[in-house]
Amino acid sequence: MTASLIGLDWGTTSFRAWRMGADGQVLDRVNQGPGILAAAKLPGGFQAALTAAIGPWLHPSVPIIASGMITSRNGWVETPYQPLPLGVEALAQTLVDEDFDGHRIWFVSGAISDRDGPSPDVMRGEETEIIGHIAASGVSEGRFILPGTHNKWAQVQDGKLTAFRTVMTGEVFQLLSEHSILGRLIQQGAPSPAAFLRGLQAGAADGPLLGRIFSARSLALMDRLAATEVADYLSGLLIGDEVAHSVTEDAQRTVTIIGRGDLAERYLMALQTKGIEATIAAPGMAQRGLWTIAKHAGII
Amino acid sequence: MTASLIGLDWGTTSFRAWRMGADGQVLDRVNQGPGILAAAKLPGGFQAALTAAIGPWLHPSVPIIASGMITSRNGWVETPYQPLPLGVEALAQTLVDEDFDGHRIWFVSGAISDRDGPSPDVMRGEETEIIGHIAASGVSEGRFILPGTHNKWAQVQDGKLTAFRTVMTGEVFQLLSEHSILGRLIQQGAPSPAAFLRGLQAGAADGPLLGRIFSARSLALMDRLAATEVADYLSGLLIGDEVAHSVTEDAQRTVTIIGRGDLAERYLMALQTKGIEATIAAPGMAQRGLWTIAKHAGII
Repeated sequence: MTASLIGLDWGTTSFRAWRMGADGQVLDRVNQGPGILAAAKLPGGFQAALTAAIGPWLHPSVPIIASGMITSRNGWVETPYQPLPLGVEALAQTLVDEDFDGHRIWFVSGAISDRDGPSPDVMRGEETEIIGHIAASGVSEGRFILPGTHNKWAQVQDGKLTAFRTVMTGEVFQLLSEHSILGRLIQQGAPSPAAFLRGLQAGAADGPLLGRIFSARSLALMDRLAATEVADYLSGLLIGDEVAHSVTEDAQRTVTIIGRGDLAERYLMALQTKGIEATIAAPGMAQRGLWTIAKHAGII
Repeated sequence: MTASLIGLDWGTTSFRAWRMGADGQVLDRVNQGPGILAAAKLPGGFQAALTAAIGPWLHPSVPIIASGMITSRNGWVETPYQPLPLGVEALAQTLVDEDFDGHRIWFVSGAISDRDGPSPDVMRGEETEIIGHIAASGVSEGRFILPGTHNKWAQVQDGKLTAFRTVMTGEVFQLLSEHSILGRLIQQGAPSPAAFLRGLQAGAADGPLLGRIFSARSLALMDRLAATEVADYLSGLLIGDEVAHSVTEDAQRTVTIIGRGDLAERYLMALQTKGIEATIAAPGMAQRGLWTIAKHAGII
């Protein structure tokens, strides 16, 4: 079947691509490839990486649209950040295009919140997934979390992104596991939901976070936490703290988790443990967002 | 002058020793040597390390007393943790002694809080510094912070240690500086007290800590924080969060900082910024504590 659009979700360490038909249906997909850090170092850079990953799909009549860190300072083309509230129209109007061997590639803008305030924040790629979710679900209001190395908590009103915050829980969990005194106690083992739940409770307790994490060590020293449970306990503690401080009293509406696999399940459990209704979104939101933005831009 | 006691404060990566006279006065001192991690790997281990560091001081008639991580599972002798409240008498009664080439060395116990509770905590070495401060100042009540890789916040009543908590701010600052996405933005430069103060404010703000730290990146991306200011901003943010969550409303009494140098000054500034009276203790608390415990034990 003839393709009408190629979509790319190209992150720091990830690469996903979709070949889409006339109605946005997925004809073909690629789930891995070099992230932008790796691609930038290849001979031929991003163009070579893209050709290697999806060369047979490329055709002058098929536009390409890309979102994610590929639009950052270290990416292929740096697109401006768009202010909030941000909807599909503004994203469609601010696409940045580039020619590449006779092909046309369009880059989606990132989003910025609180540019001049005490705590500005930025995203690249997640705005596209949120747009995809709005298009797919027809829901125009809500609270979202997109778990990852850097989680994004986002708020949507009237079909537009109105607020968001980055939380570095994933990266800090990794640092503590690999490099800290807590990590030295970790032994790999079967997942322990019980240890994760204990961690969630410690995460919701009072006192400084960087004090509470020490309990992962002291409990292990007291033989009250097995070495194979330390990682799940620590994961629960960090996620529990994040959730406790991100979901405020007046906003305990349903939270939609845009993500997959183990990490999405952990956030689901953390939210439900706090009595907050939560659901995991259907997969495919990045692809759907890219299609929706391209459609609004008149590229297809 | 004849020595009557040798004191050792022997930590994970530090070694300090004092040769004391009949009234506890310092006759001689050594400020560096291998910490326990390094000493354990030497041929001859701890004994060889000690002989190399202070061999000329050693004499069968001069007892040695040691505190710090040297009394931990990875140290020379593992001493038990003593429960709270913990005063000099209990520390004197629970010394563990060992012979070493005709010399007698006494090891101070560590302290444990909340052994069976949700968040047990342990210390080795800081209890001795606190005992030293009580002896030196005559003050028998108060709130203390001992800054370091793992800070200890401690409470003293009736001359005894009654509560404490470990906060891993120092280690996490180092991890974020060396290994995280925030660290990549750091350029060394002249210290910036202004950036530290900005960090303190962000540290006292609402929201999850692992979200607020991301502002060190976003402010730098917006050119609102210079690369040479990122480290001081991040230091202020972590310390500000720690102080905000450690000093509760009902306990805003004077805090005594037992420590030296730049880190002690940072905590002084953080506490004063929050309107909390704070002072830096006189130096020499570890040596004074070792002397006081030895005296109570009748070793000297």
